[in-house]
Amino acid sequence: MKIVGGPSSVELARRVSDALDAPIISVRSKRFPDGEFYFKFEEKVAGEDLLVVQSLYPPQDEHLVELFIILHTCRDMKAERIRAFIPYLAYSRQDMRYLDGECLSSAVISEILEHLGVDSLYTVDVHNENVLKNYKVPAYNLTASSDLARYFLRKGLNEPFVIAPDDEEIAIKRAELAAQAIGADYDYFVKKRDRYTGEIRTFSKEMDVQGRDVIIIDDIISTGKTAANAASILKQMGARRVFVGVSHALMMGDAAKLLKDAGVEEIVGTDSVMNEFAKVSVAPVLAKAIKER
Amino acid sequence: MKIVGGPSSVELARRVSDALDAPIISVRSKRFPDGEFYFKFEEKVAGEDLLVVQSLYPPQDEHLVELFIILHTCRDMKAERIRAFIPYLAYSRQDMRYLDGECLSSAVISEILEHLGVDSLYTVDVHNENVLKNYKVPAYNLTASSDLARYFLRKGLNEPFVIAPDDEEIAIKRAELAAQAIGADYDYFVKKRDRYTGEIRTFSKEMDVQGRDVIIIDDIISTGKTAANAASILKQMGARRVFVGVSHALMMGDAAKLLKDAGVEEIVGTDSVMNEFAKVSVAPVLAKAIKER
Repeated sequence: MKIVGGPSSVELARRVSDALDAPIISVRSKRFPDGEFYFKFEEKVAGEDLLVVQSLYPPQDEHLVELFIILHTCRDMKAERIRAFIPYLAYSRQDMRYLDGECLSSAVISEILEHLGVDSLYTVDVHNENVLKNYKVPAYNLTASSDLARYFLRKGLNEPFVIAPDDEEIAIKRAELAAQAIGADYDYFVKKRDRYTGEIRTFSKEMDVQGRDVIIIDDIISTGKTAANAASILKQMGARRVFVGVSHALMMGDAAKLLKDAGVEEIVGTDSVMNEFAKVSVAPVLAKAIKER
Repeated sequence: MKIVGGPSSVELARRVSDALDAPIISVRSKRFPDGEFYFKFEEKVAGEDLLVVQSLYPPQDEHLVELFIILHTCRDMKAERIRAFIPYLAYSRQDMRYLDGECLSSAVISEILEHLGVDSLYTVDVHNENVLKNYKVPAYNLTASSDLARYFLRKGLNEPFVIAPDDEEIAIKRAELAAQAIGADYDYFVKKRDRYTGEIRTFSKEMDVQGRDVIIIDDIISTGKTAANAASILKQMGARRVFVGVSHALMMGDAAKLLKDAGVEEIVGTDSVMNEFAKVSVAPVLAKAIKER
């Protein structure tokens, strides 16, 4: 196997290469003055088993077109097998059409990826796992929850407690995995979105967080409102410190400020999104998944 | 036929609707806070003959993903026929692979458009006409040259002269059409790109522009360097006024300033690119082409 690093995940591709002890393919890419993307393999890929690494964090449309162009070139250059590692799979909100006439963008992505010859897909903590059912090829959802939780062990945690900021099954499962990884307790909040205003309300339950260090484990932080709501409630309930461990720290607008203001001590993301919060790598979970198959 | 206006071409779609006397379909679209695109038809399109209007000017990757999502929704909602009007067809520099391992992005676009069910494609003054050979479905290249030239008639032109800023066959053809439309003479410059530095050099020929009003007719203005070179030479040769008529006024960075500094009196683009230079519509040429078929 050889690794192809897309522009959104150059550093992650290097880590994947190390973790799998697989060489990285030399490539060249650039943007023309008008913004068009250019890509070139600097070595032969004919007959190779390729793993393309490209995360789709914002600007997601640019990263998506880059991915399409790279995959098309892999296929044109006669790669034998094309696996895609897309830790942040954008456009994964909806797995079905709720309203007639509505786009189903997750299906657009899956259809194009398959048309371009992707043989299998690996992603991390996808927002809605059902979108993977759109794929005819194998599509695996990995999780960074355990590694995120373990990051906080260095903080000298006091009676650690893990919380899921909403009550979806997959969110609770991630909190459970994170709690297990560090021998902590866990629970979840109930999140409701107002049908008319779109406003998010978080409802807490009775839980014993007094004087404890709490880690909020979430899949995505976009505007940061959900996690900020949770952090405020936890501080009000007497939590000692509140941390956020998030697989995809998109951090749109003033999300970081919002979280700080809500009392969050530290935000820890992964290299799924290459920004200042990327303190944990998703390369090990990918390497484990690849080796197991 | 009914018209679907994509986000990059809302106003143009209305003009196409008027020119073809075809109703416009009510749609809703937005960007989520994290930047993801959402699209919805507000009325039934099942069984309809649709013309999707979406130009791919910068940010071209966003406009491209919007187009893919709209086309996919047309198909999913069981439109009978899907025509695409993409006046500015991004990624049309290369129709073939010059270097081994290089991407052929024009083929990525054509392949995805066809996979998504486009039955025919209309574009305007595509940079390299050979990219249309990638299409298995009919793909028509229209030209805005005549309409651009006619715009300048209101300027009280003195012995008008049309110039192509480079010597490619298609560029000369556009200048010829523009010149015919206003009963002017025309000629062309020779443009050479330095193989090592990438710098563009423009070579003039002997031509009689002394005291005359000159219109540079070009397909795309990106950085503006080519047209600025041409304008400087024309002014040195004694041209009275120099105008630029361009099908796709991308106007990256300080292109407008560059052209003004080179002595250009006015830059006139089309509604292929919705910006301050869009003074001519491409709706009439599209309407004519549709009616003829």
